[in-house]
Amino acid sequence: MSPTDTIDQKFNLRLQLLAQTVENTIENYLQQDPNIPVKLYEAIHYSIKAGGKRLRPIIVILACQASGGTQKDALPAAAAIEMIHTYSLIHDDLPAMDDDDYRRGKPSNHKVFGEGIAILAGDSLLTLAFNILASNIANTTLVRDLVLELSHAAGASGMIGGQVEDLLSVNAHKTLEKVELIHQGKTAMLIRAAARMGGLCAQTTANKIDKLGEFGLKLGHAFQITDDLLDITSTLQEMGKPTQKDHKAGKLTYPSVVGVDKAQQQVKILIEQALGELEDFKDAAEPLRQLARMIILRRK
Amino acid sequence: MSPTDTIDQKFNLRLQLLAQTVENTIENYLQQDPNIPVKLYEAIHYSIKAGGKRLRPIIVILACQASGGTQKDALPAAAAIEMIHTYSLIHDDLPAMDDDDYRRGKPSNHKVFGEGIAILAGDSLLTLAFNILASNIANTTLVRDLVLELSHAAGASGMIGGQVEDLLSVNAHKTLEKVELIHQGKTAMLIRAAARMGGLCAQTTANKIDKLGEFGLKLGHAFQITDDLLDITSTLQEMGKPTQKDHKAGKLTYPSVVGVDKAQQQVKILIEQALGELEDFKDAAEPLRQLARMIILRRK
Repeated sequence: MSPTDTIDQKFNLRLQLLAQTVENTIENYLQQDPNIPVKLYEAIHYSIKAGGKRLRPIIVILACQASGGTQKDALPAAAAIEMIHTYSLIHDDLPAMDDDDYRRGKPSNHKVFGEGIAILAGDSLLTLAFNILASNIANTTLVRDLVLELSHAAGASGMIGGQVEDLLSVNAHKTLEKVELIHQGKTAMLIRAAARMGGLCAQTTANKIDKLGEFGLKLGHAFQITDDLLDITSTLQEMGKPTQKDHKAGKLTYPSVVGVDKAQQQVKILIEQALGELEDFKDAAEPLRQLARMIILRRK
Repeated sequence: MSPTDTIDQKFNLRLQLLAQTVENTIENYLQQDPNIPVKLYEAIHYSIKAGGKRLRPIIVILACQASGGTQKDALPAAAAIEMIHTYSLIHDDLPAMDDDDYRRGKPSNHKVFGEGIAILAGDSLLTLAFNILASNIANTTLVRDLVLELSHAAGASGMIGGQVEDLLSVNAHKTLEKVELIHQGKTAMLIRAAARMGGLCAQTTANKIDKLGEFGLKLGHAFQITDDLLDITSTLQEMGKPTQKDHKAGKLTYPSVVGVDKAQQQVKILIEQALGELEDFKDAAEPLRQLARMIILRRK
């Protein structure tokens, strides 16, 4: 085993531990409310437990640490953004949207609990995300700033707007501008918010928060292009969800506009640009850099 | 025309003006974000413009004024709670939920824009409600308190929980306890939050906020029983939505458990109890009392 492999293994273990901590934190918050109807609780719990990379909350934590804060400072914001992401997956999988029967290798929420409960489980997670910010952070200015950041990125001109553009893109005129607009809303804005929220939790300078935001934006675009690429190149078994689906559905993807080679090249360019934003952070941002480099090597 | 009629007419005019102010405020907030995709904006706008009594925001404003605050103090919270209510109507009308083709005399959101966009328009309003609280109120402690209040009342153990219980109540064992649980979640908790948020916006005492909350809770229960009663006794033309629908669907309603006469009696008892909570507020709460008394006479 080469030294690089050892470092990667150590970092992978750290990411796994972080993902587990985020999941435990969310479970803890959920259990604090005994008045949630059993069936609704089960549906929420099902999607929270379904795993995933926990990329967004891990970015919140690593960005907070890169800015001099602690993991503990970042946990409520990390949990909140993962709840927003999870709600968006539940709603996106619905028959009226992307109509996906599988998510992370398991039947999607509405296949198990029915569409009505799935919609309400998503609504619950969206609502609870803001409750958690307000319930678990003592500094009210920070609560206000995090609510602003998250609601803007997840809202009608952010993540939801991206999903609308994506829905309407079926068989649309394929331009690079359009696909970048969709990626910006659907993915990059929430990853940008994750990085900024990490900086906010550490109460760092506005300038550093802006740098983190630019880092997140570039990383988010790179991440969504790799998602489009994996839709073409990988199998159901690897991805835990049906692949080539976007392609077959006539959805607008990055490689469908510029081709696979150019898309792969663009990922590398974006990651370089993202890394450039972190210069001021010196060694403290090394884990964040390592995370960014892993995007290029993504296999699922 | 008797003096009572004149007072009622004056009060009705005041309510209409308040409703218009709330609608204008929401429109204003919506227009501040030019990056919302056109189709999504249209869908959100359609449901916001669809009218309705604006009961919840009017309670926020009147409760704020009853506690020594101004209409201006209450407007962001009033707009936010109406957005939450509107999102819940859009989602409740979906085929997977109550499957209603009409709302307030017009085709429901998904009949006009399709299910996918309707779900996303609801998600947008829910997200924007929290954004508006954080964007438009300078006092960050108040922002935190309002986010807590609204997210709790609208969440998995509040309004969404009530909708889940309602969905699962079809042909369920009809008990008074069960129907009161559904009403509590589906309607009373958000109306309780409206009254409490009014007190919070006026920065009144915790004791007065609790009294307002009890007032809202009783009023909310009374309001939902009148809703159940109107489902039985009125026509599509009067209600702007199909009636006898709950009854036909085997839904659990208050009159289906205790009968129409006892249900009407219960409304009067609840309104008396609600009024009892307002004693400390003296003359300042007169509009709030008048609003409560109108519930007994509700025709739509």
